[in-house]
Amino acid sequence: MKSSQLQLCSRPEGHPSAENFSMVHVDLPELKEGQILVRNEFLTVDPYMRGRMNNVKSYVPPFELNQPLEGGAVGFVVESKNSAFKVGEPVLSGFGWRDLWVAEPKGVISLKNMEDYPLSWALGTLGMPGLTAWSGLHKVGALQPNETVFVSGAAGAVGSIVGQLAKAHGARVIGSAGSQAKVDWLKEIGFDEVINYQKQPIRKALAEVTAKGIDLYFDNVGGSHLEAAIDRMNVKGRIVLCGAIEQYNQLERPSGPDNMIMIVGKQLSLKGFIVSSYNTYHNQFQEDVRGLIGKGQVTVQETVSEGLDQMVNAFLGLFSGHNTGKAIVKLSLN
Amino acid sequence: MKSSQLQLCSRPEGHPSAENFSMVHVDLPELKEGQILVRNEFLTVDPYMRGRMNNVKSYVPPFELNQPLEGGAVGFVVESKNSAFKVGEPVLSGFGWRDLWVAEPKGVISLKNMEDYPLSWALGTLGMPGLTAWSGLHKVGALQPNETVFVSGAAGAVGSIVGQLAKAHGARVIGSAGSQAKVDWLKEIGFDEVINYQKQPIRKALAEVTAKGIDLYFDNVGGSHLEAAIDRMNVKGRIVLCGAIEQYNQLERPSGPDNMIMIVGKQLSLKGFIVSSYNTYHNQFQEDVRGLIGKGQVTVQETVSEGLDQMVNAFLGLFSGHNTGKAIVKLSLN
Repeated sequence: MKSSQLQLCSRPEGHPSAENFSMVHVDLPELKEGQILVRNEFLTVDPYMRGRMNNVKSYVPPFELNQPLEGGAVGFVVESKNSAFKVGEPVLSGFGWRDLWVAEPKGVISLKNMEDYPLSWALGTLGMPGLTAWSGLHKVGALQPNETVFVSGAAGAVGSIVGQLAKAHGARVIGSAGSQAKVDWLKEIGFDEVINYQKQPIRKALAEVTAKGIDLYFDNVGGSHLEAAIDRMNVKGRIVLCGAIEQYNQLERPSGPDNMIMIVGKQLSLKGFIVSSYNTYHNQFQEDVRGLIGKGQVTVQETVSEGLDQMVNAFLGLFSGHNTGKAIVKLSLN
Repeated sequence: MKSSQLQLCSRPEGHPSAENFSMVHVDLPELKEGQILVRNEFLTVDPYMRGRMNNVKSYVPPFELNQPLEGGAVGFVVESKNSAFKVGEPVLSGFGWRDLWVAEPKGVISLKNMEDYPLSWALGTLGMPGLTAWSGLHKVGALQPNETVFVSGAAGAVGSIVGQLAKAHGARVIGSAGSQAKVDWLKEIGFDEVINYQKQPIRKALAEVTAKGIDLYFDNVGGSHLEAAIDRMNVKGRIVLCGAIEQYNQLERPSGPDNMIMIVGKQLSLKGFIVSSYNTYHNQFQEDVRGLIGKGQVTVQETVSEGLDQMVNAFLGLFSGHNTGKAIVKLSLN
């Protein structure tokens, strides 16, 4: 039995490119007692993966060179030597970037509870990016109704959920995105104001739509966006630092915001967070977001590529604004 | 009756200089019923005053040109048309930068409760800078015993109290200061490690003394010190942003820290604060700090200049590292 998998063959310096990756085909061993064979159907690409491609200590260890890359994956059990997993059962794992693989059962989670939803949503709105949005907004940011929320990278997997959750909670929501098509879509799903940061500098554009200031800023972009937001924060405003996609591929150390001193005078708080610290809220998050999906207050959007050979392109597309909503790679089962 | 007072006659651009100030002598009106005449004895100069010299909206309004400057002052009632204030009584007010002045009683606070302490301490360890240190450390920073605390500007009015309070609370304390004399003094009063940032770059020096990282950073300096601290913060560390004296006189907008992205991965929190938001803790602060002074765990240090004509020099000295501990100007009563 052959498995195809993507490996990191060299560490990107600055922008990653196709040459940093290689497709490798390996023979799988026979299943041992207790193991299952999984065929992945949906793979995820997420911006945080870029960080793991650097050889630096962080909250997750770096990817190893010439080993299969890792990431979220939804698949089906195709063979089982474990009574807890039936053939045909959908499972979630952290063993993406490959098609077929042999799983120890503790490495997979059953997705029986996803029967009412498309399975790929377990990698997006009902998965890690959804929990990121929900916990960042509610647990880190302590969003109150009637507040003004600004979210950058608003058309992305996390940003688009942040905006919709904030609207559902009664907030006024401002977003930033990098194309007119994204701006139009975000307005369709209920954003009050959306800035196209490709058309004018974010600092100027944000000032124009924030006459009443910003109470809560959810930062996915960093750099210029964070600086623009600090300018416009209200007294005692909160900034939730989730990511800094503007900076992930920068070769030189970026200058920080030129207005840090405002953090003192305005009594701002900035909090960095990573979603794994909020896994304990999984059930509350699921209940809340499923309810909002049911009421039509949260719309799920995916940008789907097909085939394992499209995985690298899908990943690179995260940094060129290719995706609207969640970027997913669907593997052909034939 | 003549009053001498210092006025701001032009707004400083970059570093303030003596030419921005002028000494003015004015005639005081006769006391009206309810008013008191106060002769200031101790005046304070504090770094935050620099911000009020710019014509920008902030948490306190800018100083007005050609009006007496304001700031903390301790004086004595020398004439009273108000039964609540006796002649000879010491009072605290916000009407410094002058000698004699006519007070509305709601603008002054009796200092009867200072009978066991030098009155000037009401402008330092037992006044606004003390409450700044205490509330920043305990209420904003939530210091825990056994944590490692780093405080910049450690020999200053606030920094020196921060370090001593943190030691008294059981923390390991690292400080930074700008001369060998300050380093020596800080070690004398109990700091575990002190960096002379004039002798080597703070980023390198801080790394050398923080093998176990930093749990709580109390920032009085900003810029290079904040950047150095972010490098060395432990996971879920807290940064209390109190001031940024390195930047107050910069003409160009300063670059922010080049490592902001670490705030996400390390799940740091940065909180700006101003002391006036913590005035409700006045009594608890007084009780706590007076207790520590009594036990010898907090030492009070002042750098005293004499004469109203030294006020501007004392203020300018804040930015050249002239003072150790609290900078005070004592007016001659003769």
